[in-house]
Amino acid sequence: MDTISNIVGLAAAVLTTIAMAPQVVKIARTKNTAGLSLQTFAILSAGIALWFVYGLMISSLPLIAGNSIGLLLTLCIVFMKIKYG
Amino acid sequence: MDTISNIVGLAAAVLTTIAMAPQVVKIARTKNTAGLSLQTFAILSAGIALWFVYGLMISSLPLIAGNSIGLLLTLCIVFMKIKYG
Repeated sequence: MDTISNIVGLAAAVLTTIAMAPQVVKIARTKNTAGLSLQTFAILSAGIALWFVYGLMISSLPLIAGNSIGLLLTLCIVFMKIKYG
Repeated sequence: MDTISNIVGLAAAVLTTIAMAPQVVKIARTKNTAGLSLQTFAILSAGIALWFVYGLMISSLPLIAGNSIGLLLTLCIVFMKIKYG
């Protein structure tokens, strides 16, 4: 059960982490961020940072690994949104 | 520690769940989804669904509660992106 749950958790971490990549690429290419909500990505960054801390507290590798990379990508989106408006 | 970690996890869950709400409201109001990556929100939906399953497997209330609502909001964004292009 522990192994299976870790596999499911790691798959979840991989998906929610790589999910932000197409958005980062799309903004870098089009510089169009008009439709994006700054609030959404700012709150998301704060939430992902807390998931990372929660992962450390409960020693969950999927939470720690996924949310550290996910936070970087989400912060990229926040900064590009601020830059491109 | 268990209480503190649950508080941190619940705060994380609340933030990443409510984060999607401003984006849903913004799209509903402007119908402008051109800058949004469909891939991002589709992959995110799949990932959030797996976090929900992982939460069930490790009996984590923050993961279960946050990701069930977060999945609904993210799917709203996916459907509006498909509708408005």
